[in-house]
Amino acid sequence: MSLLIKNTRFLDVIEEKIQEDMDLYIEEGRIAKIGKNLDVLADEVLDGREKLVTPGFINGHTHLGMSLLRNYADDLELQTWLEDAIWPIEAKLDREDIYWGSLLSMAEMIRSGATCFCDQYYEMDRVGDAALEIGMRGILTRGLIEDGDKDLKLDQTRALYQKYHKKGKGRLRVVPSPHAIYTCGEDYLKEIIDLAKEMDGVINIHMSETIKEVEDCKRDHYMTPIQYIESLGMLDLHVIAAHCVHITEEEMDLVKNRRFYPIYNPSSNLKLASGFTPVQKMLDKGIVMGIGTDGDSSNNNQNILEEIHIGSIVNKAVSMDPKALPAMEILKMATINGAKALGLEDQVGSIEEGKAADLAIFNLNSASFTPKNNLISALCYSAQAEDVESVLIDGEFVLKDRQLTKIDYDNLLKTVQDRMDQLVRR
Amino acid sequence: MSLLIKNTRFLDVIEEKIQEDMDLYIEEGRIAKIGKNLDVLADEVLDGREKLVTPGFINGHTHLGMSLLRNYADDLELQTWLEDAIWPIEAKLDREDIYWGSLLSMAEMIRSGATCFCDQYYEMDRVGDAALEIGMRGILTRGLIEDGDKDLKLDQTRALYQKYHKKGKGRLRVVPSPHAIYTCGEDYLKEIIDLAKEMDGVINIHMSETIKEVEDCKRDHYMTPIQYIESLGMLDLHVIAAHCVHITEEEMDLVKNRRFYPIYNPSSNLKLASGFTPVQKMLDKGIVMGIGTDGDSSNNNQNILEEIHIGSIVNKAVSMDPKALPAMEILKMATINGAKALGLEDQVGSIEEGKAADLAIFNLNSASFTPKNNLISALCYSAQAEDVESVLIDGEFVLKDRQLTKIDYDNLLKTVQDRMDQLVRR
Repeated sequence: MSLLIKNTRFLDVIEEKIQEDMDLYIEEGRIAKIGKNLDVLADEVLDGREKLVTPGFINGHTHLGMSLLRNYADDLELQTWLEDAIWPIEAKLDREDIYWGSLLSMAEMIRSGATCFCDQYYEMDRVGDAALEIGMRGILTRGLIEDGDKDLKLDQTRALYQKYHKKGKGRLRVVPSPHAIYTCGEDYLKEIIDLAKEMDGVINIHMSETIKEVEDCKRDHYMTPIQYIESLGMLDLHVIAAHCVHITEEEMDLVKNRRFYPIYNPSSNLKLASGFTPVQKMLDKGIVMGIGTDGDSSNNNQNILEEIHIGSIVNKAVSMDPKALPAMEILKMATINGAKALGLEDQVGSIEEGKAADLAIFNLNSASFTPKNNLISALCYSAQAEDVESVLIDGEFVLKDRQLTKIDYDNLLKTVQDRMDQLVRR
Repeated sequence: MSLLIKNTRFLDVIEEKIQEDMDLYIEEGRIAKIGKNLDVLADEVLDGREKLVTPGFINGHTHLGMSLLRNYADDLELQTWLEDAIWPIEAKLDREDIYWGSLLSMAEMIRSGATCFCDQYYEMDRVGDAALEIGMRGILTRGLIEDGDKDLKLDQTRALYQKYHKKGKGRLRVVPSPHAIYTCGEDYLKEIIDLAKEMDGVINIHMSETIKEVEDCKRDHYMTPIQYIESLGMLDLHVIAAHCVHITEEEMDLVKNRRFYPIYNPSSNLKLASGFTPVQKMLDKGIVMGIGTDGDSSNNNQNILEEIHIGSIVNKAVSMDPKALPAMEILKMATINGAKALGLEDQVGSIEEGKAADLAIFNLNSASFTPKNNLISALCYSAQAEDVESVLIDGEFVLKDRQLTKIDYDNLLKTVQDRMDQLVRR
């Protein structure tokens, strides 16, 4: 199948501008040709005059299966929220709940223009199945917490790697994932690091999310969290480091020339009162960052456009500088830099010839984009998920005219509701 | 015309809960009857089973006519932004630009569930015309800045009051509105206070938005801004006080038993790096607050649901407490407390018999509301403007199945774009 998007404009995150009056020719899942007035024949031609094409957004950190638990418990202290509310109900989630919950999260992500995710949860084979079904790109990571099943969980990671790594035309990846330094002991962390080395040398972990985590680490290891993971050899790997709310300047200097990629989760960090992530400071140090939604129970949605918007404006106030974290910088976090953070920049993250055709197509004929002044600002500050008209992954429409093409959306909503009704009775 | 919404649920901001299995009967623009299985005949019956009805949201502070300037200049220092970018182009806006820009802002507000606004701008008669056309409720305030035309502007306020106050079946109000203490001298402020007393005793002003405003006030008047307006007698009036980012504890104590209503503008305060408004502290003092979008050039959208969401989560981080500014509290700011702030609580702000039928109807058959756990949390943290299916003002549909009923939306978008194209060439 080939597709020609005629007379359009796209967000060029490499040149950091909107490229106007462009044709995009997509063939066999790739962006085959970009230029003005392309002389090509395509199976399908899309009039792009009133559209804006962006790279599909990359949700660098989430827990997809948690969507059943959204709005189940909020406005509580972190420990109360986790221990009294979330964990007891989460323990009752079964494999099928996680499959359906993940599918719902994916539907929501796609409907906000996201095409790729990095997920940490369990029953990850069912998350992989959901991704294959809806056609999404993503990194599957089985969260590893040290308990009686710690070896079983490593085996599950190995099995997941065998069965899902590079499946779906290479769209899926599998990466080992210790939950956090406070839920895994030193020996277990070392085992996981060794496993990551056996695989592709990538690891995914929650880092420095709360002050408590940092203080406990200093008490137990006489080091800050990133110093601690360095002492274990983790910084020799490619590290996808969710949160980094309480990263110190010293730690920034430690990681700035390493393959260490913080993923900023604005809504979650604010909602859980974890703190204000020093994004502009990390960027000033040259650290490459991604952005994520976090799970639905701490956000409580999977709309990546909200994260872009909130992340940008909050950091202006934190930096006491309206020039901080400008629109283009955070859009890069959600595209090319997110791709770098996930180790996928050869495939996605920008609209360049040869890359996979993972694209979001915005309808500019909307209030948010009227009048069409600076479209980069409009994407960050005005755009609504409703403006995302269509989404392509690997050149295939997964959303067309706001309808999901690969799944039955009404049945999805109904099934998730039914499962939640059963869950609370379990 | 009468309307019966059958078997629905609604947000009760008085009892602070969702009232389930309710019928709402609307007659002659009012909420005539609320109850279970109402035995009434209505001209139109709406199946409310998959809906959630809320009071129409109240946008307590905005500059509607600025939407042409949205995304025109961003990521700049406040003074550069205003003086080099916004003011030069704003000076070229004509009456018709402001009419069309206001209509666009109103369309956007309605599409996010808002039914009422407090606007401060100029050419306010054309804003009033737009409100009458689209059917919105609102307070019109001509921004008063002391310059060569200071007396003319007072006359315009008087003329506006004569022509628009209580027009549109009482939906419109006119209130005198000094722009700020730093743009009006002491004598001019006193003249405006006297004018407000001649009218309905209400005044609308920007207060303590930036540190500079506070510091300049202390330097010039040896008082903080709210102490200063008290010294002028302004606190004898009903004061709608936009922003109050830098209100002091002493000032909070000064106003807590007065008719002084801060309007919180989360996106604008963050984006302009004005600071973090101490919302929870003001609430703890018993101060009644509203919430607003501010103008499109500093937000850059008129989606009141985003303000509800952002305002809540930012204040949790500011307070270092995930229990701060819970969902219900900020929903009250957007409804009943916003109505109190605007002096309209007798008419709107809650779903109670006798009040005007200003309602937003959410479609619960959406990803955001699936599964249906705590719907109060869902409204605050998950809901998207796209979920607002219909909106009623004074019992009339202004939005139905996501379509604006009173205006031609496509023509609106096209006209605003044409006018902006002309504006930059002027």
